[in-house]
Amino acid sequence: MRSIQSPEDVTLAVQAVMQQTTDSRLREIMTSLVKHVHGFILETRLTEAEFRQATSLINELGQRSNDSHNEAVLMAGSLGVSQLVCLLNNGGVVDGDGSIQTTQNLLGPFWRMHSPRTENGGSILRSPTSGEALRVEGFVVDGSGCPIADAEVDIWHASPVGLYEQQDETQADMNLRGKFTTDAKGRFWFTTVKPRGYPIPTDGVVGRLLKAQNRHPYRPAHLHALIFKQGFKTLISQVYADDDEHLGSDVQFGVTRATTGQFEKRADGSYLLQYTYVMQAGEAVLPNPPIK
Amino acid sequence: MRSIQSPEDVTLAVQAVMQQTTDSRLREIMTSLVKHVHGFILETRLTEAEFRQATSLINELGQRSNDSHNEAVLMAGSLGVSQLVCLLNNGGVVDGDGSIQTTQNLLGPFWRMHSPRTENGGSILRSPTSGEALRVEGFVVDGSGCPIADAEVDIWHASPVGLYEQQDETQADMNLRGKFTTDAKGRFWFTTVKPRGYPIPTDGVVGRLLKAQNRHPYRPAHLHALIFKQGFKTLISQVYADDDEHLGSDVQFGVTRATTGQFEKRADGSYLLQYTYVMQAGEAVLPNPPIK
Repeated sequence: MRSIQSPEDVTLAVQAVMQQTTDSRLREIMTSLVKHVHGFILETRLTEAEFRQATSLINELGQRSNDSHNEAVLMAGSLGVSQLVCLLNNGGVVDGDGSIQTTQNLLGPFWRMHSPRTENGGSILRSPTSGEALRVEGFVVDGSGCPIADAEVDIWHASPVGLYEQQDETQADMNLRGKFTTDAKGRFWFTTVKPRGYPIPTDGVVGRLLKAQNRHPYRPAHLHALIFKQGFKTLISQVYADDDEHLGSDVQFGVTRATTGQFEKRADGSYLLQYTYVMQAGEAVLPNPPIK
Repeated sequence: MRSIQSPEDVTLAVQAVMQQTTDSRLREIMTSLVKHVHGFILETRLTEAEFRQATSLINELGQRSNDSHNEAVLMAGSLGVSQLVCLLNNGGVVDGDGSIQTTQNLLGPFWRMHSPRTENGGSILRSPTSGEALRVEGFVVDGSGCPIADAEVDIWHASPVGLYEQQDETQADMNLRGKFTTDAKGRFWFTTVKPRGYPIPTDGVVGRLLKAQNRHPYRPAHLHALIFKQGFKTLISQVYADDDEHLGSDVQFGVTRATTGQFEKRADGSYLLQYTYVMQAGEAVLPNPPIK
């Protein structure tokens, strides 16, 4: 290691050490990380007090995370990092105006494995849940528009008061969750209640940031899906309600044109959502649930 | 917020939101942070799996930290961030060859408030501690070389087996810690045992990184000081032993020429360290102890 006498020397010494990394991908990641972290410190001329505060804040992210909350994921979303990663990795299909037409979206923290298997046409209400009735008709296709049969579709969403079942003692276990299988024509359908938008938790680091930035904490109403089929990249999706007041200002930067669904109000006051999910060829792998 | 259709749109939308930050310094920091974090993701084309792993690792930093361990501080040191911040904020005095001549150095995690007051000439051994005898003669001066009287000097160091007292049940509380006051000529002096280098804890994220990068976990032997005097920027110092085998490869990138002390071996086998600490005019503030 060369002798360290100046800020420039520190970066050179650290980068020399990064080159010792055995795995070439990790070497690439660490080299870029050091470049950008050091670049951030030099650009802001971060003070010693600010640096200490930064290490405390990083520790606080982890200390605030537990089986039912993931503050690091929340922060990543709140800085647009999750959406940036999503669009960067799903940019294959682009419209004439440069829009990326992916139905991939953020996983969010609330996906659980082992949602209850539900027949098409069934309801995902597991306990009485007041709200406006919603019928969902999903259509799963490949990149050429051909239907995908026998795809497994995990569905989950927040209640009309904006809480997922594991955040809310009044809901039964697995309420507003279900696992469907597409029929021969790539379709699945079910009934539920119309989800509502909700504020993300604001009692941690992210909440303090939002307050300092005069930001509201709301996510527009959305319906999650995770669609699994061998031969296809697992589709992690959110479909946003087009009538939500926060559609244009999602605190997690999740909304795109391709992920905005038409929630059509019918004569009887209930809603219908018809939405086409597009899967790309790829590897069928499940993520780890971000919380338990 | 503008509509998000591409990776470029995400960064534009997030930066527009960062501009809403009330405090101008926080606005500057967040704008730079977003630029560099998004830049890192674009440069590495971070995959979705890598992104999820990254959020888990950030949470793990906090979850590994507790009253006796600070993994975020350890990571910052292991990526040279702590030293970069130090040299950037203490670059006032520069040698002819561009070397920064500061005696400021990393705080590290182990400083405690309320070290036992000790008379000059006293020992900081609070329980039997085998090792080579060391006499330290410190000299505290201002930027012009004038002695600073009545400065409060907190001293702490690891034992000859490389453990701080709060890590080691065999040591008495506050062993190898003391609080001295400089005399009219800016001097303080005491006896102790010669510190040894030690490996940083490797059972967390940092340990896995070091292993992946073929790095040893050692810090060279060093003597910590925190010197407090109204009218001067609090001096946080480490003086490294010039005879340590890891002097040129400190895992925390802490060693500079100005912070390397001559540990002189005397005829009776004991050691003498004479070292001059230079304080700059500034604000006398104490940091928060990184651990309890």
